[in-house]
Amino acid sequence: MARIEDVSSPARMAEPGEDISRDELSLATRNHGLPLEALRYDLTPPGLHYVLTHYDIPYVAEDADWELRIGGHVNRPIRLSMDNLRSYPQVTTRVTIECAGNGRALLTPRPVSQPWLVEAVGTADWTGVPLRALLAEADVRDGAVDAVFTGADHGVERGVEQDYQRALPLDTALGDTPEVLVAYAMNGAPLPPQHGRPLRLVVPGWYGMAHVKWLRDITVLDRPFTGFQQDVAYRIRQDPDDEGTPVSRIAPRALMVPPGFPDFMTRARVVRPGTTELEGRAWSGRAPVTAVEVSTDGARTWNEAVLDEPDEHRWSWRRWRFDWNAVPGEHELCARATDAEGRTQPLDQPWNRGGFANNLVQRIPVLCTEPS
Amino acid sequence: MARIEDVSSPARMAEPGEDISRDELSLATRNHGLPLEALRYDLTPPGLHYVLTHYDIPYVAEDADWELRIGGHVNRPIRLSMDNLRSYPQVTTRVTIECAGNGRALLTPRPVSQPWLVEAVGTADWTGVPLRALLAEADVRDGAVDAVFTGADHGVERGVEQDYQRALPLDTALGDTPEVLVAYAMNGAPLPPQHGRPLRLVVPGWYGMAHVKWLRDITVLDRPFTGFQQDVAYRIRQDPDDEGTPVSRIAPRALMVPPGFPDFMTRARVVRPGTTELEGRAWSGRAPVTAVEVSTDGARTWNEAVLDEPDEHRWSWRRWRFDWNAVPGEHELCARATDAEGRTQPLDQPWNRGGFANNLVQRIPVLCTEPS
Repeated sequence: MARIEDVSSPARMAEPGEDISRDELSLATRNHGLPLEALRYDLTPPGLHYVLTHYDIPYVAEDADWELRIGGHVNRPIRLSMDNLRSYPQVTTRVTIECAGNGRALLTPRPVSQPWLVEAVGTADWTGVPLRALLAEADVRDGAVDAVFTGADHGVERGVEQDYQRALPLDTALGDTPEVLVAYAMNGAPLPPQHGRPLRLVVPGWYGMAHVKWLRDITVLDRPFTGFQQDVAYRIRQDPDDEGTPVSRIAPRALMVPPGFPDFMTRARVVRPGTTELEGRAWSGRAPVTAVEVSTDGARTWNEAVLDEPDEHRWSWRRWRFDWNAVPGEHELCARATDAEGRTQPLDQPWNRGGFANNLVQRIPVLCTEPS
Repeated sequence: MARIEDVSSPARMAEPGEDISRDELSLATRNHGLPLEALRYDLTPPGLHYVLTHYDIPYVAEDADWELRIGGHVNRPIRLSMDNLRSYPQVTTRVTIECAGNGRALLTPRPVSQPWLVEAVGTADWTGVPLRALLAEADVRDGAVDAVFTGADHGVERGVEQDYQRALPLDTALGDTPEVLVAYAMNGAPLPPQHGRPLRLVVPGWYGMAHVKWLRDITVLDRPFTGFQQDVAYRIRQDPDDEGTPVSRIAPRALMVPPGFPDFMTRARVVRPGTTELEGRAWSGRAPVTAVEVSTDGARTWNEAVLDEPDEHRWSWRRWRFDWNAVPGEHELCARATDAEGRTQPLDQPWNRGGFANNLVQRIPVLCTEPS
């Protein structure tokens, strides 16, 4: 008897010393992170922005055939074509999106899933219609609690067949800080297929799981949404039976462009002696980043980096830089961000079963060669 | 004493049963394959085309500052700006490029390097200037043997610090089948950074290592080129001491869009009973593909697929399709291409130390559910 449960597997932790499995590799060859040298770009070129898709990327032959339905606990259910959506006043917001599972493969024990190291991030200008304008038109009824967003991507996860679905609390869906977008363009062009063509949700400041791609339905509920991606996955738990807390906004993080040049296989870095400008980006979905510190001695001592002035892009990463006088020998470089609410990054990563919301301080071993 | 050799490692094979190492994962999170559902596109959207970079992606702030030098064993060394290059008659060629290491992670023992399964491929329209036009202008001298192409990407590999360099035999560089391009556009837009912005070589029919990205120098030699990527890497060898044979043209391969929908973690496929159209693409850099066969019983029996008619795109993959009557149970789907020179794909992959030029028949386990 052929059963879907037979092709699916429960959540598991890697055994002590277990390297990356074939299943994890199958995800890692499809999905990809931001090559860290691309932190140099304010706006990540689309093919360098991190991508995680749970199931297959839906094939959409004609954007013109796409329809977004809005219904549920509303007085005026509506259906919108792409042309309808483009007739609304449009908003463009620069947003840094990070995968909720970034850093998972650095945890011990390692939750077996997409095995990110530190690179699951990217920044783009997203253009679309504010969600609250669409919900106002649908006229949400009193007593509404959650808005559920359904993508066209379909698959199985831990035995549960599903369309990808996530909800936002109604006050978040209707809020203006952040202003949630139903987006149809990325960096001024139609969305690439892997970023949700033709339509996706963008929830500035929230981890990637909230930014539902291939968005085809918004249903308002008068009770909390209890779907798989809301109540089973994407919760921070120590034990399977914990109720846990939902994954939501992005914790502060700084990443550095690895200086010098790499070894192909070990990715170890080599620099020449002398002044090397270290640079990178820092972000937080909680509050603006207010400081970045750099260590060149493996987090023993820290120095203040120069952070770019705040600009109008509240939800985008900020550039930072630091001049390092590299001397021959082995070094370990680190960077650490702090936000306006005093949150910063740990040197020892708290663990959770899903491997979510990690922001361990990045460590980059560097070899500085002798003068030539 | 800090030595570059200390951060680099020699070539090695994975131990029996050894899973994917942290070093391999570091490559797999940066580089990425084609998600196989994207085989549906004639032209791969740029962010879905496979990417392999040996070192860092060079950061090019201004294309206008780029200069291509052509020199060595020529009578008239030249330097060309991007504007100069765009003033030549331009050619656009549709080319399927596959990484020479595609399939490496399926080998036993597994050569430790970028751990591709089957997905390192993509197809694009490349626009640029025929290399032979530029070499004619530089006026190659009698006795020339090789043309060496140098990229701006710099790193270390097995202890050897280097710019990425590869050569073509002069008759290939000057040939018209294939016609080699110095390309500045991909699918009608400037090259994305990860595909060589602003300039790369495109060698239709050859594996990816020949298509030098971030191209800044072409040097004609009156002797064979013996650089690292030519004489050490990218050779097919059984033992480290073998002279080996160089990796060059792409072996025939067919890939299938995995039908139905996936399990997130196992990537196993689920289909409903009934007629399912299987489809995919097939290519060979040796000779045009003349047949694709499909097996739905794990390569025990084979059926002829319907191959699209040949068109003007000699160097591009061809679409194929096959109607499968799926019945409940477990199945294993396979596809196999044959080219006009009679080359086909093995069911047991011959092994080589670098894990190059693999074209093992793809196998896709599929569960067909009971009627609902």
